[in-house]
Amino acid sequence: MSQIRHALTVKRADDFAQWYQEVITAADMAEESGVRGCMVIKPWGYGIWERIQRLMDDRIKAAGVQNCYFPLFIPLGNFTREAEHVEGFAKEMAVVTHHRLIADGKGGLVPDPEAKLEEPLVVRPTSETIIGDAMARWVQSWRDLPLLTNQWANVVRWEMRTRMFLRTSEFLWQEGHTAHATREDALDETKRALEMYRACAEEDLAMPVIAGEKPEHERFPGAVETWSIEAMMQDGKALQAGTSHYLGTNFAHAAGIQYQDREGGQQYCHTTSWGTSTRLVGGVIMTHGDDDGLRVPPRIAPWQVVIVPMLREAPEDAKLVAYCEELRAALAAQATLGEPVRVLLDTKPGKAAAKRWDWVRKGAPLIVEVGGRDMEGGVVSLLRRDRLWDTATGKPAFATPTRDEAAATIPAVLAEIQQTLFDEARSRREANIHRGVDSLEALAAFYDSNGRYPGWVEVQWSRPTGAELDGVVEKLKALKLTVRNVPIGAAPADGTCLFTGKPAVERVFVARAY
Amino acid sequence: MSQIRHALTVKRADDFAQWYQEVITAADMAEESGVRGCMVIKPWGYGIWERIQRLMDDRIKAAGVQNCYFPLFIPLGNFTREAEHVEGFAKEMAVVTHHRLIADGKGGLVPDPEAKLEEPLVVRPTSETIIGDAMARWVQSWRDLPLLTNQWANVVRWEMRTRMFLRTSEFLWQEGHTAHATREDALDETKRALEMYRACAEEDLAMPVIAGEKPEHERFPGAVETWSIEAMMQDGKALQAGTSHYLGTNFAHAAGIQYQDREGGQQYCHTTSWGTSTRLVGGVIMTHGDDDGLRVPPRIAPWQVVIVPMLREAPEDAKLVAYCEELRAALAAQATLGEPVRVLLDTKPGKAAAKRWDWVRKGAPLIVEVGGRDMEGGVVSLLRRDRLWDTATGKPAFATPTRDEAAATIPAVLAEIQQTLFDEARSRREANIHRGVDSLEALAAFYDSNGRYPGWVEVQWSRPTGAELDGVVEKLKALKLTVRNVPIGAAPADGTCLFTGKPAVERVFVARAY
Repeated sequence: MSQIRHALTVKRADDFAQWYQEVITAADMAEESGVRGCMVIKPWGYGIWERIQRLMDDRIKAAGVQNCYFPLFIPLGNFTREAEHVEGFAKEMAVVTHHRLIADGKGGLVPDPEAKLEEPLVVRPTSETIIGDAMARWVQSWRDLPLLTNQWANVVRWEMRTRMFLRTSEFLWQEGHTAHATREDALDETKRALEMYRACAEEDLAMPVIAGEKPEHERFPGAVETWSIEAMMQDGKALQAGTSHYLGTNFAHAAGIQYQDREGGQQYCHTTSWGTSTRLVGGVIMTHGDDDGLRVPPRIAPWQVVIVPMLREAPEDAKLVAYCEELRAALAAQATLGEPVRVLLDTKPGKAAAKRWDWVRKGAPLIVEVGGRDMEGGVVSLLRRDRLWDTATGKPAFATPTRDEAAATIPAVLAEIQQTLFDEARSRREANIHRGVDSLEALAAFYDSNGRYPGWVEVQWSRPTGAELDGVVEKLKALKLTVRNVPIGAAPADGTCLFTGKPAVERVFVARAY
Repeated sequence: MSQIRHALTVKRADDFAQWYQEVITAADMAEESGVRGCMVIKPWGYGIWERIQRLMDDRIKAAGVQNCYFPLFIPLGNFTREAEHVEGFAKEMAVVTHHRLIADGKGGLVPDPEAKLEEPLVVRPTSETIIGDAMARWVQSWRDLPLLTNQWANVVRWEMRTRMFLRTSEFLWQEGHTAHATREDALDETKRALEMYRACAEEDLAMPVIAGEKPEHERFPGAVETWSIEAMMQDGKALQAGTSHYLGTNFAHAAGIQYQDREGGQQYCHTTSWGTSTRLVGGVIMTHGDDDGLRVPPRIAPWQVVIVPMLREAPEDAKLVAYCEELRAALAAQATLGEPVRVLLDTKPGKAAAKRWDWVRKGAPLIVEVGGRDMEGGVVSLLRRDRLWDTATGKPAFATPTRDEAAATIPAVLAEIQQTLFDEARSRREANIHRGVDSLEALAAFYDSNGRYPGWVEVQWSRPTGAELDGVVEKLKALKLTVRNVPIGAAPADGTCLFTGKPAVERVFVARAY
């Protein structure tokens, strides 16, 4: 077996954090902006986010949820109203205090002291309070329920330590907010959103996830129940990739969201909120990336097929481009995974080999290289990003179908790549979930001895609460571990709690996490 | 002719500004948020914006422009760097000075003095300066050009007097930013974007516009040329509905956007920027609204057809809903105006007549009402929003095609409504453009005597600049008039300048404006 020379300088096995940064740079997805904690999302990164957004938005609309837009700024007073919620968010937020700049007399500008706001405005870290105000206006009677809203927006949380896509001060997300007549309806919606996230993660992002309920101490500030989807990254850490909250009547009481029921009585609504963000792009990188860069699942790839003609800045180029254009048109006229094939004919200036490696690092699912000799033979050189290397030769594993074969088979190959990426990630996850650890000592020993990327452990516990739970959290923290969630559909408990020694009531996942 | 009882309380002819507000409320498009100058965009208003966004984005992508995302916050220093640009924007902006809140000891929260930012951050009023920084990093060689980027984002300009959709402190927009090797390429892009805006306004929004160059004093701060599309509202005022700027090398010099040319020399890029915003929704209201509410052109209608079964909360309802559902499915399976028909079966609780008028006020292009008798007769009751009234009877002009006829003809009817709305608006505009006014006195007399909604006047002028132009602007201001633009493709000048008495060089539109 020949030695493969991978496209990245850092390998996942050597330094996962460094590798992650290199993928983002090598795939040209995003960069530091010069504004603290904020990134610039570049076309390839933003294109992936747009695809996720489109597919998620279709799911949101199909559920009868309507998009709205609420203000970026939230009056400070809204935050003081909801005590528990404030506690969770009040600390690090961007605060607008002035609405005008004036010259400082030294060639610079300063906030105009005359233009100080009477009440500072907070740049939204999430919109429960301001949407709660709107719901209080919009809901009058049971006929107005359920009220199902969503917004796509930017939010700001002043993070001390940031990491592109995973934790940035400003990020993009969708936040669903719904109001219901009953607890049961609101819980159904909480679960519907969670299932939507599971389906989007697994079907669109090809990222297997565990859907389940977060333990009490990990609840969203003000929530009665918080549910999440958790994905395992290639370093074995967990990524919380989406959350769905049942808020009880807490926010309804704070904002006065009431309805008249069929009998004429006044009732408080039960509300929910649920969100996913640009963090999902980070999840895609850490689920599917390899030592050659990113691999984008076809459903969310801005371009699923990239055709690279080997141009020589010579008159023959025109014929080669025409040959490629016929393939492009034949593919664009077909559908795969329920949508037209997204195919780019890349005629930008530059050497074909350099362009090939650019697209490998970006993770375009299929790269079609076409040189003069290919054209003469009526073939193309086809590279599947999910099977990049011929391990026998250590060279890229080009296939050379005829152009017509390529046009006929590529749609099905894209669907196959989508499935392959999912299967590969799921197998890896299953191989890295460990069971049978039955004491805290064994847990510590497991994480001590199971290598750098030890994965998750499924344990049984007694669902401790309050001070008892705090004790468990402390013990786990000492091991740099967290409880992820209580998976839906897990086998019933049949042992004793790893932490308390009491009879276990359910199974939970324990892991290191982002 | 019977008296028609219109659905709104205020008529356009009586108080246009009041009518505008009533449409927004009656069509449930937006409302005040309680945050100064910021609105909440409700589902019907946001749905129209989403449609505009989708169609515009398709046009943007078709031109090879790539979407990115840049930070919400811009360091204050960026604004001091570009002197002319600052002058235009520095005055009213939201300034973030703190990144944390703390308890004030009285149950409230205040910005934490310990968390004061060293350099305040400005909430972007537009992104030329921060995108310029990125371009300086991204552009190295002629091979990187043209660099074609766009972002969909929220921006904030602290407006003193606000009006929903037309002028709000926070608004949603797209801003295109491009860099080119030559002046010619940049000018081509400036015109391409302008033509894209014209096509989107006329073809998608059915809103006729005049594309042309803004006079010198109306240029974007820092621009060498500013072009606009201008639409005539039903009160005869002009709405600037989109702008496209050729920025010369001004921003390139300020941000250091340079490229190495084919000969190895360093050159400054020529840049452009172009934008349209949620203001377009205001334009749609004032172009197509009538005394019964909004009329949404089918291309941008969230729902093009709304089917309202006359439900009685009785067991027979199920059969009626099934009858309607067959029509819904038959329509949803067809296409019109290049996309699948968007049809809603509205089974929300409520009286059918009330629901009909809700949809009339919202301006759904076609309303299909179905009662038990319709079902028995195999027909439906069809209401075209663009021909709402039977003027002979003063009643809604229902047609009663068979259900099959409705299914077969509705796609074409929608296309017809799209065209009808455009034609109607264009005829009205043409009827309200006046020519032959050849002195300032005649201009004053025209606006004095031509009623409340006098329209536009096309005049010839000598294209004054500098102090001479200032004089013209002052004279017009006294008449509450402005120069809109120099229309592309107008007849050549053949007279003398209305303002200076010199030989005229071109024609310009003069109007009152939003």
